[in-house]
Amino acid sequence: MSKFSTAVKRLLVGRPFRSDRLAHTLLPKRIALPVFASDPMSSVAYAPEEILLMLSVAGVSAYMFTPWIAVMVALVMIAVVASYRQNVHAYPSGGGDYEVATVNHGDRWGLVVASALLVDYILTVAVSIASAAANIGSVVPFVATHKVEFAVGAIIVLTAMNLRGVRESGALFAIPTYAFVAGILAMVVWGAVRVFLMGDDVRAESADLQLLEEGDHLTGFALVFLILRAFSSGSAALTGVEAISNGVPAFRKPKSRNAATTLLLMGVLAITMFLGLIMLAIVTRAKLAENPAHQLVNAPAGYEQKTLVAQLANAVFGDFTPAIIYVIFFTGLILVLAANTAFNGFPVLGSILAQDRYLPRQLHTRGDRLAFSNGIIFLSAFAVVLVIAFDAEVTRLIQLYIVGVFVSFVLSQSGMVRHWNRKLATEKDPAARRRMRRSQMINGFGFVMTSVVLVIVLITKFLAGAWIAIAAMAAFYALMTGIRKHYDRVNQELAKAEGGAPILLPSRIHSIVLVSKLHLPTKRALAYARATRPDVLEAITVNVDDLDTKRLVVEWDKQNFTVPLKVIESPYREITKPVLDYVKRVRTDNPRDVVTVFIPEYVVGHWWEQFLHNQSALRLKGRLLFQPGVMVTSVPWQLASSAGVHVDDVVAPGLVRRGLAVDEEEERR
Amino acid sequence: MSKFSTAVKRLLVGRPFRSDRLAHTLLPKRIALPVFASDPMSSVAYAPEEILLMLSVAGVSAYMFTPWIAVMVALVMIAVVASYRQNVHAYPSGGGDYEVATVNHGDRWGLVVASALLVDYILTVAVSIASAAANIGSVVPFVATHKVEFAVGAIIVLTAMNLRGVRESGALFAIPTYAFVAGILAMVVWGAVRVFLMGDDVRAESADLQLLEEGDHLTGFALVFLILRAFSSGSAALTGVEAISNGVPAFRKPKSRNAATTLLLMGVLAITMFLGLIMLAIVTRAKLAENPAHQLVNAPAGYEQKTLVAQLANAVFGDFTPAIIYVIFFTGLILVLAANTAFNGFPVLGSILAQDRYLPRQLHTRGDRLAFSNGIIFLSAFAVVLVIAFDAEVTRLIQLYIVGVFVSFVLSQSGMVRHWNRKLATEKDPAARRRMRRSQMINGFGFVMTSVVLVIVLITKFLAGAWIAIAAMAAFYALMTGIRKHYDRVNQELAKAEGGAPILLPSRIHSIVLVSKLHLPTKRALAYARATRPDVLEAITVNVDDLDTKRLVVEWDKQNFTVPLKVIESPYREITKPVLDYVKRVRTDNPRDVVTVFIPEYVVGHWWEQFLHNQSALRLKGRLLFQPGVMVTSVPWQLASSAGVHVDDVVAPGLVRRGLAVDEEEERR
Repeated sequence: MSKFSTAVKRLLVGRPFRSDRLAHTLLPKRIALPVFASDPMSSVAYAPEEILLMLSVAGVSAYMFTPWIAVMVALVMIAVVASYRQNVHAYPSGGGDYEVATVNHGDRWGLVVASALLVDYILTVAVSIASAAANIGSVVPFVATHKVEFAVGAIIVLTAMNLRGVRESGALFAIPTYAFVAGILAMVVWGAVRVFLMGDDVRAESADLQLLEEGDHLTGFALVFLILRAFSSGSAALTGVEAISNGVPAFRKPKSRNAATTLLLMGVLAITMFLGLIMLAIVTRAKLAENPAHQLVNAPAGYEQKTLVAQLANAVFGDFTPAIIYVIFFTGLILVLAANTAFNGFPVLGSILAQDRYLPRQLHTRGDRLAFSNGIIFLSAFAVVLVIAFDAEVTRLIQLYIVGVFVSFVLSQSGMVRHWNRKLATEKDPAARRRMRRSQMINGFGFVMTSVVLVIVLITKFLAGAWIAIAAMAAFYALMTGIRKHYDRVNQELAKAEGGAPILLPSRIHSIVLVSKLHLPTKRALAYARATRPDVLEAITVNVDDLDTKRLVVEWDKQNFTVPLKVIESPYREITKPVLDYVKRVRTDNPRDVVTVFIPEYVVGHWWEQFLHNQSALRLKGRLLFQPGVMVTSVPWQLASSAGVHVDDVVAPGLVRRGLAVDEEEERR
Repeated sequence: MSKFSTAVKRLLVGRPFRSDRLAHTLLPKRIALPVFASDPMSSVAYAPEEILLMLSVAGVSAYMFTPWIAVMVALVMIAVVASYRQNVHAYPSGGGDYEVATVNHGDRWGLVVASALLVDYILTVAVSIASAAANIGSVVPFVATHKVEFAVGAIIVLTAMNLRGVRESGALFAIPTYAFVAGILAMVVWGAVRVFLMGDDVRAESADLQLLEEGDHLTGFALVFLILRAFSSGSAALTGVEAISNGVPAFRKPKSRNAATTLLLMGVLAITMFLGLIMLAIVTRAKLAENPAHQLVNAPAGYEQKTLVAQLANAVFGDFTPAIIYVIFFTGLILVLAANTAFNGFPVLGSILAQDRYLPRQLHTRGDRLAFSNGIIFLSAFAVVLVIAFDAEVTRLIQLYIVGVFVSFVLSQSGMVRHWNRKLATEKDPAARRRMRRSQMINGFGFVMTSVVLVIVLITKFLAGAWIAIAAMAAFYALMTGIRKHYDRVNQELAKAEGGAPILLPSRIHSIVLVSKLHLPTKRALAYARATRPDVLEAITVNVDDLDTKRLVVEWDKQNFTVPLKVIESPYREITKPVLDYVKRVRTDNPRDVVTVFIPEYVVGHWWEQFLHNQSALRLKGRLLFQPGVMVTSVPWQLASSAGVHVDDVVAPGLVRRGLAVDEEEERR
């Protein structure tokens, strides 16, 4: 079946290319920045807008809180960036928040972080693609009216690319990321120049729209709640910041310092863009409503609310369409790239969790690429479900998103505080102690800030959707502890057995060759079986058809084999049970013997040929394994069609961020 | 994956029961009749009705042709029954039409018959269940308004029962079949008594309805066409007659004579019921319209047309509701039983086709019950599609049905004519020659009759739906020739190889034990490998994690194994490729050696545990088989969870009609 599903995937995504020439390629900072920062920087495309949307509920008067909220978000961002700069120095192995929490808080909390990160990967895909759809929809009306279809289509394309194995490269990330940063910064600067230096009246297209005033009712507690909710949504700007801490091993030396510098650069750029966009939104008097049809009182009929980035680009660049298209295009592109980050990050995290036996082992070794493929399909299936369930509305998806991010922030930063405590307990050098205390202060500040945000998020978002993310985290947690328990139980079972029964060397080998016809595969199996020089060697055949069996026996006698052929009766034309019974009998008669069953097998090249051959052999093999003291030996006969098959060794997602890449110089040679 | 699908099936249909005590149980005639005749006799439940429905298009005046058409159908029936009585004498082995056509017309025509029969099995399910729904709908209005849902549900229940393995028994067939026959005959007799002896005015509820008269336009050619079409539909009464010819081996001795007698009895009963129902329909003046809403001019609002059987039962038994319910209930039941016949007949035909290599081998040996299950699911899936596509309307489904039946009739009867020609060429005894000539006359008459019907069916039904059945037959034909060609190609390949390269006895055995950890499964694999006394024995491990590998090497050295452990590097944490490369190198260095790779495997009891273990081993195994000169030996380690698993030996459908049944006396002992 797995061959079949592989074939289906092939059909969908084409033949993957080989990667014989993979090499360790460490990333310079100028490439590392786009590789790791596309996700956090892309979030400035929706975070400012979400603040305005949340405040809009209380009418335009609530917009006066916008700058304060923005500054608070920027402060939290600074705290988080500063904190993670400590992380990358202390934990340069790439384990990220999961490692920090596991080491300092124990396995359970580590697993909580892992669950949160898994949920975040799913939401990164859903939110980024939904936002990309909204932005592209601001210039292409067709996309706006088919947002869900577009988003689902985009996720499917990303999935197909990642299943096929996209050749990740720095350039793939670098160009759109730098183009996006350049575009947003140019827009902010040019907007500021026009407003503050040239005195232009730069107005967003929604500047004259009136928001429904419900502000009278929203006073006291309700207003505070609303402001906190807007702040929570704005905190979406912080998603993805932890990515660099997972990627330290991919940096050039000195790894930690380079990672810390990149983190700082990323923080500066993100905060600049974030505050710049908020500033532009204020000066252009953009109005963004959560529910435009209801809240925008004087909107013209058929008014389609564009994204904030689109409105600002239109306002700032006016008639210069190429610049507008440029900004919106690269905003859409970097959001798609951010979604792709999740496809790359998943296998990396999966591999680490598999090493700790929280996920199936094959995710760690790359032996079974199918496991990766299943992971990718799993990820995109959930993202598609979310996109459909929430109509690809960024605002609704954001409610689920932030809780997971801050759970891992909080556990990571509190873990760091403990980390420094441990270090301080042994460190004597005053200079080092001073540095540690300073780092601990920073992490402590980060912990306090992120904790406050987490509490705010929990209070303001729980009923709005965060509970879904929490439930999903709990489900992942339960699944992973279940898997771990299973592996532990198996280990215990093996350890127990070790004490009890030592493994006896079998006294004799009793070999049985399974014969259905006297053709070449059978003859080869006989020759091989004889070469193993067993103590007893016999051939058996199951009589499912009297005529065929008689013919076989006659032919056998003609060939003068020295090996006797036993015929086993099977009145109901079964194969498995009579053979099993025979093997059991042999074992009962000589309990210390080991039985080897030689099964001649056809090896075929196409998945559908598998249905036509070996089915009885496979079933029998599967059943024989349940018999103690039995070995099963497959003696293959390669049919011509098998010649075309070779091992496909494909590019797995997440190579670049693990410091592995196709060595292009090597390739050129 | 197959384990998973088995688990899903389990969940749906429960654990199948064992069949340790199956025995050959031959059927006495009184049991054989219901077992084989439920299908042909059930068709009298819809065939008379279909004649009236077809004629209704031309208005009530066309009803005058009803008796003539009925007599014609009865004549064809007599011819077919008489013909098949010759078949069961000449071909007592149970191959039926497929065997007759293959032997006398060659493989291609045999395959045409097989394709036709496969299509017929699907349609038997669809038509019978649709008719059952219509009949039950005549007393339970809810079923009438939810006909499609009811039919689909019934097919799913039948499928589940057959997947689980229904214990077929004569009684299961006997009671409903005899009850049905008794009910219909009682109704016919009582109706005749009331009308002809007591002079009652027995009127169907539709007696006073007026049919839209389009008769003026339908003259000449159109009228002839309509009558022929009605005759075609009436010929549906003949479906299933060939069943007994497939079941001769299940009869008590003298098998052929008993089968022939049973066939005769079945024919007499079917014709009596058929003509009786037609007679009742005429005297009660029942009106049945293909499109009641349009054609029944003076029908009351909300008039729901009941089936003919239901209308007659109501008319004949009047206020005696138990009798009405009895007739309709057993009509519904025998139709369900007829549908079940297809589920039983399919594996039997599949087994024969598999023996001739037109279908996968595992359908012949019962080694893989999964193959049967897949066949059953295939059958019911197509039936469900048909039921949904044709709104569970018997009239529309009938259009597809009859063509396949008559294709096999015609090929079988013409085959029989040839058969007698061959026999006559060698037979000298005048008495025997006379008997043969007589038989040939009968088969020849059958051939002519069925050919005429086939032509009529093709002309009148082709566009109405028969083309779908023909296309499906062509598809089956193509599939089966494809499978046969594949098997032939493989045989040729093996034969060719036989001439060229004789199998050399390998000069030496080079054994490799695959090690990932030094635990009990590995130790057992080592012990077993050593017991086979290979010329070279070494252990290899793939280094996917430096730390783990170092630990393993240290432990290995501590244990003082005499077997050396080689570490194979794998920079990208792969397992398959490094091992494959190593094995290839060993083979290249010593081309006449055979390499045996010992793989320690965990044996687990639950399908989901399979995802957590052995994935790399399985993949590697699959790949190693493609290497020439390599044997792969699985050394199982049975984990505790595997203890609960034992071989399920389940009851396959179609046992009773193969003369196999659970020996109840044996069971009692």
